[in-house]
This record gives sequence, structure tokens and C-alpha cells, in this order.
Amino acid sequence: MSADALAGLIAELPEGAVVTDPDILASYRQDRAFDPNAGTALAVVRPRSTADVQATLRWATANRIAVVPRGMGTGLSGGATALDGAIVLTTEKMRGITVDPVTRTAVAQPGLLNAEVKKAVAEHGLWYPPDPSSFEICSIGGNIATNAGGLCCVKYGVTTDYVLGLEVVLADGTAVRLGGPRLKDVAGLSLTKLFVGSEGTLGVITEVTLRLLPPQQVASTVVATFDSVEAAAQSVVTITGRMRPSMLEFMDSASINAVEDKLKMGLDRDAAAMMVAATDDRGATGIQDAEFMAEVFTKHGAKEVFSTSDPDEGEAFVAARRFCIPAVELKGSLLLEDVGVPLPALAELVSGVAKIAANHDLLISVIAHAGDGNTHPLIVYDPADAAMSERAHQAFGEIMDLAVGLGGTITGEHGVGRLKRPWLEGQIGPEAMELNRRIKAALDPGNILNPGAAF
Amino acid sequence: MSADALAGLIAELPEGAVVTDPDILASYRQDRAFDPNAGTALAVVRPRSTADVQATLRWATANRIAVVPRGMGTGLSGGATALDGAIVLTTEKMRGITVDPVTRTAVAQPGLLNAEVKKAVAEHGLWYPPDPSSFEICSIGGNIATNAGGLCCVKYGVTTDYVLGLEVVLADGTAVRLGGPRLKDVAGLSLTKLFVGSEGTLGVITEVTLRLLPPQQVASTVVATFDSVEAAAQSVVTITGRMRPSMLEFMDSASINAVEDKLKMGLDRDAAAMMVAATDDRGATGIQDAEFMAEVFTKHGAKEVFSTSDPDEGEAFVAARRFCIPAVELKGSLLLEDVGVPLPALAELVSGVAKIAANHDLLISVIAHAGDGNTHPLIVYDPADAAMSERAHQAFGEIMDLAVGLGGTITGEHGVGRLKRPWLEGQIGPEAMELNRRIKAALDPGNILNPGAAF
Repeated sequence: MSADALAGLIAELPEGAVVTDPDILASYRQDRAFDPNAGTALAVVRPRSTADVQATLRWATANRIAVVPRGMGTGLSGGATALDGAIVLTTEKMRGITVDPVTRTAVAQPGLLNAEVKKAVAEHGLWYPPDPSSFEICSIGGNIATNAGGLCCVKYGVTTDYVLGLEVVLADGTAVRLGGPRLKDVAGLSLTKLFVGSEGTLGVITEVTLRLLPPQQVASTVVATFDSVEAAAQSVVTITGRMRPSMLEFMDSASINAVEDKLKMGLDRDAAAMMVAATDDRGATGIQDAEFMAEVFTKHGAKEVFSTSDPDEGEAFVAARRFCIPAVELKGSLLLEDVGVPLPALAELVSGVAKIAANHDLLISVIAHAGDGNTHPLIVYDPADAAMSERAHQAFGEIMDLAVGLGGTITGEHGVGRLKRPWLEGQIGPEAMELNRRIKAALDPGNILNPGAAF
Repeated sequence: MSADALAGLIAELPEGAVVTDPDILASYRQDRAFDPNAGTALAVVRPRSTADVQATLRWATANRIAVVPRGMGTGLSGGATALDGAIVLTTEKMRGITVDPVTRTAVAQPGLLNAEVKKAVAEHGLWYPPDPSSFEICSIGGNIATNAGGLCCVKYGVTTDYVLGLEVVLADGTAVRLGGPRLKDVAGLSLTKLFVGSEGTLGVITEVTLRLLPPQQVASTVVATFDSVEAAAQSVVTITGRMRPSMLEFMDSASINAVEDKLKMGLDRDAAAMMVAATDDRGATGIQDAEFMAEVFTKHGAKEVFSTSDPDEGEAFVAARRFCIPAVELKGSLLLEDVGVPLPALAELVSGVAKIAANHDLLISVIAHAGDGNTHPLIVYDPADAAMSERAHQAFGEIMDLAVGLGGTITGEHGVGRLKRPWLEGQIGPEAMELNRRIKAALDPGNILNPGAAF
């Protein structure tokens, strides 16, 4: 029956859009959450246009077949994990972009990489700020589906702050335009914002209108090492209460050592924490802000403070911070956490994670977008070791419980996906869960869009 | 029957919370849209707590009585216009606030004035940016219900950008907490953002968690007059493509003259347009940006350009701009428009409005948050003159049609309310209308929350 139904979809879409080759299906089973329980799709569909997406969803609704939307598959929460018998709809072939320097907006299709969006708008002297660590390999559509963050958020906010409009295709195949290239627009409910971060559960994003900024100025960078996590965390609170750094990143001892193992750039292996901070304010203000951050680090007992206004020197430290995940990954497979807490609880979260690591005899290194209270504990384990895998997953859950207990969130920027779904209600409560479900039911009554993701 | 039902509500709420005095009911018939077709409520309810709001909505649902939520009644689109037989629920008695300088957040009840929020957080050295022109008399709850804007938006964004969390009471009386004091949080759908700008149609806001910034720096102000609206509008595009002014406001000839009539500060009565721009970057950057704006104005043929870094001098021009609405109001009653367009269409919008004014033999002055493409054509008329009222309302509609035709919006920051409802579908289209209705039906199936507002 499925094969018959699939013939109908193949007939409706351009040649080659529907793929059933088993090797290709296998390559679309998992995203970067590497869910071992991933299913295998009936087919991978690669639409090239909004009309293709509409045809796919109309067909899916008619045949009651689930659709898992997917960008470049770099998600870390299993939001794009394939389901047996479902369609994986990848937007990778939808790659157009037009930039309007006068309105400072860009209209992009979802399959373009974040880095490609940045490059295309830079050619017009403009800047698209959001910069998830995966910016060179993740798609703008996926960024919007997860409301992705990054290093710049502490000053420049998250993806939703740059989305002025969307075209989305609903479960029944209807294409809807929301918002547009208007900087202020309150006509009707804030539906554009509702679709940002909806993880493919409400519709498929087929086009996005992005707000752009004038180019970022060259930053001054301040790096400091600390004997204690608490001192580093306290400096974050002091800095953000007074000024707006363009970056304020944290690495713990394990991360420092993992990076130093590989890059051998002379990082202090004995430090308990390292902060990488930057300001992109120009001239006297920038100098003043960099000096202020250096002073705060010193006042909070930093072992060493290093400031530079040389962009290459600064970039080396940012690269070290960006290299943390690959560096720690060299030690084993990762369960990548994404918990966030209100700023004052940052040190308590980090020390709590250390306790969980000790309890379960695991290496868990912690990096953080400290200025946002958003941390990434990286749980290292060997998937071939069943007992260790079990302990890793136990720790994964305990870290979320810890964050929620501290008034925090189970996910700051990666999304709930399938991996974190069991913890969502514990954070947001039964009333908010019910509200999520009501919206979902109103927009996707047949539950064909990414069932099992988020809620 | 209504009186019996009302007795039930009176019994459930604290003494004095339910008001039925006819004079008081009359004073809650209209907001600042002064809708002549406003009804008279059955009662005005003044809750002091979330529990009071819950009791009111439970009662309203049980008795199928409509509820019109209201802040301070400063809305300009008739979102709080009373309905015959409904309850007007005013949040004016809910006025608590606590500020947490460490997380840079404030938790406020909805009835507090915007100015009171600004003042409370300033006592902790912090800043709440959104600044609608009515900031001294409008409530923070109303600001959130309309996603209010202001003069600072061009650099600092709108209300939604500062709302981290909400407590809302749904139609059935359920209280739901959404978001919280976390700078990044993607757990579940973006429901906080959905409620911002929902104009009382989805729930009643009973508490809000606001994101705060370090204090704004003293601004440098640049004022320029022009012989043509086009030249002024073109300068806006040039400036915003290169830098981020903290204010970029436009006044047309009629506004300049109305202000000068009253303030007699020596404004150029012959100018076709006046721009009031500011930068709040400090030190060399600020000086450089102010010089850049002055150069751009000159290059676009400004008649006169005046720059000052003296805060009092600068403030005089901002005050002149803020005084536009009261000044024009001295000439008659106002229909206050709020249309927005993509920046390049700004001049065409302003000249189109002038044509509409001429066609209908009306005075329509135009002020604009030019950096956002958000304009406020002020239509002057005499409500006692039936023919003139008719022409004014005709012009009101034609201006919205003009904006939508230019790719714009019928409302940039005031909301749809009841006044603009007939134009909403023309802008957002039938598919987006249907999506609005589906969300509304999912959250308020009995349609008791602000029926007739927005959609």
C-alpha cells in the first residue's frame, strides 16, 4: 500500500525528488544527536520549490504518512531523527537568496547554510549576526526551526530577533506568508515568532525574510584564567550588569585541556576556568570596555589576564573556544547538553555538573555562552560500553533536572527534539504543555508533522 | 439573569472589585480611539491578583459573558472599546514590581505604567528601552498586549524583544506561566512571543518578566530641515545602511508648524520636513556617527543641519517631536494612523498621504519613526461635522490601502483593535487570517476574550 501511495508522490514531484535508495535512506536516519533508536524513512524527499513542499504535505495528509522536516541534519536534540515509514523532507535543495541592501533584508530559502547567508549579505556590506557553532554546516531553515543561538547572542540576540517574515507550508499543504520586510508590524497575531523554534511540528519553512545589520566592527578580545569556576562566573555577573560585551564565553578545565592537547597554543592546563570575552564597540568606548572587563577579571582574582585589539590574536582564542566540542569529541562520543540557568546560578550549575560527573565516573567538560547563562556540558562516553552509555544517559537527565531545579531551562538553543522530550513538562509545567498541545492540534490535527518531536 | 450572574461574581471577588456605577461604566466605554460606537459594559472589574483574574474568567466562561481586557485605556485602535453586556477587566490595580539587578530582569504586574517600570529599574542602574509616546500614561500590560513600539525601536527594537516571560490567564481561568528570567530558552513552542501583541484575544496578562539593559548613554542629537520629503526620506535609507542611530524621527511641514504654533522655539516653518536623529554611542564613535548623520543630511540637500552633544539642547528637539500629536490635536479631533512601509517606500507613502488629504480636503500631518518606516499620519477632523467625519474615515481607510499597496502594514505598533479590523485580511491574506482564527479558536473556543478585536 505504501509503495502504491509513494508512486502517487513520485508522479507529482520533479524527477529525482523522491529518493528510496536504501543507502541514501540510511544516511538520513540520524541527525547529530545520533539517536540509536532512529527509524528508517519510506523515502527522502528533496523539494526544490514551495510547490514541491505543498505537494508532499498534501500527499502526506491524504495518506496519513508522517513527515520529518530536516535542514542539514546538524541538530543535537534529535529533532530530525527519522521515523519508520515516514517521509524525511530535506530542504537542502532550496538554496536561493536575494539581498536588499536598501531595506537591509534578505529573502532566503531554507536550505542555504548559515555561513552562506552571512557571505551573501556581507557582499552588500551587511551582517547577519546569529552564529551557532555549526554555522559552516547548518542550514538557515534549521536555525529558524530551532531558534538557534551562538556566541554573539549575549549582545545581538538569537535567531528569532532577525526573522521578519516566513513562508510556511502547513500540514494540509496550504502555503502561508507571515510578516515581511517591515521592521515594525503588529497586524494580527505574532505568528512569525510562533513558527520560529517550532522544530518542524507546525509547518515546513520554505522562505524566510531576515533583518540585517550594518557590519560588525572589529572586536577587542580579553582572555582570563581562573583558579575557581565561582570567580569566573561572578565576573560574568559583574560585567553584564555594566556593559554589553559582544562575546562572553566560558571553558572549564576539561575543555581547556582537551583543546590544548590538540592545538598546543600554550593554554594554562592548571586553570579551573578560562573566559574569552570581546567588545565590538569602536574607538574609546571599545578600549574602555575592554579595560573594564580586564579589571573585573583581575578584581575577581584571575590568574592571568590577556587583552588584545589585534583581530588575528583575538580570533585565535575564539577559535580555541569554538574548537572545544571537536576537541572533547576526540576523547569519545558525546552527549551534548544545552541547559541554561539565570546568571547567578551559573557557578552552582557547573559545580553540580562536576558532582554528577564524579557520581557516574564520567568525563563531563563544560563550555558556556556564559553571558546568557547557557551551558553545554559535554558528556563523554563509549557507545559500545553498555554500562557507560547507561551512566551517560543517566547523567544527561540529571543535568536537566539540576538546571530546572535552579530555575533554568533544559534547552537554551538546540531545541527539545526527541532526546529531551521526556523532560519538557517538568520544566514548563502541565498548563503550558497543554497549551503547546492545543496549538499543535489546531495547526496539525492529523499529527503528521514531526510526530514525537518536542511534545 | 445578568444581574443574578453578576451577584455570583461579586461574591467571588474582594469587596469593591466589581463596579457597576453608571458614571464609572461610562468612563470605561472608550479608549483613546474614541470609538463613537462603543458599548457600555455590564460591570468594570478591577482585580488585584492573578486569582481575581482567574475567578473573573471562570465566571465569564460559565456565564458566556465577553471580557474586554484593558490596561490604562491609552490604545489608539479601539482594542479596549467596551461592548454592551460585557465585562471590562482593567488591570490598573495590579501594580507590583520587583527588580533583580543581577539577572537584569524585572517581574512586573500589568497595571504599572511604562514610566514607572523605567523608573523602578533605573533605581537599580538599569534601563527598560521601549518608549511609546504615551509612556507616561500607558501600562506595561497594554504595551505587551499591543507589542508597543516607540522612538528607540530603530536601535533597540520593540516590546517583544524585552519580554522573557509571562503569566497569562486563559479564557477558562487557567493560569499559565510561559518563559522566565532566562536569556535563552527554546523549551516548547514560543508561546511567550505569541501572547505579545495578541490584544487581549488569547488571555489576560497578569505578570511579565522583562529583560533589562545597562543604562543608555547620553545621546548626541542631529536635527536637519529639508525642502523636500523625498530628500529627507532618502537620508534615512543612507544612514540606516551604514550605522545604527538611537533615534531617527521625521516631522512633516504640518507637524512642524503645529508644534511651532505652540512652543515657539524657532522651527523653520517653511521646511517640508524635519529630521530629529540621535546616536547614543559614546566617545569617538558617537562623535563620528553624529558627524556622519550630519554629512548625510547635508549631502541630501538639507536646508539647515544642527548638531549638539548637549543633552538638554538635544532633549528640546525630542520634546518637540513628542509634542507633535498634542500640537496637531489642538487643531481638531484626530484619527491617528499607524501605517508602516519598507524604508524605500517612505517618501511615496508620505506623498500619497498628501494626495489623500487634498482629495478629501483634510489636514493630515505626518510624523514618523522614519528609521523603522513606521508613520503616524494624523487626520484632523471635527466629529460634530458629519460630512467631514465621513471624509476623515474614508481617508483613514485609503491610507491603509496605500500602505498595503506599497508592501506595508496597516499597523506598526498600535494594534488592529476594532478600528482596523476590516483591513487586516487585505494585508495578511486569507491563509494567514485563517491561521489567526485557528489559534484563537484553540485558545478561546467560546470567543469570550475581547470578541471583535483584531480578527
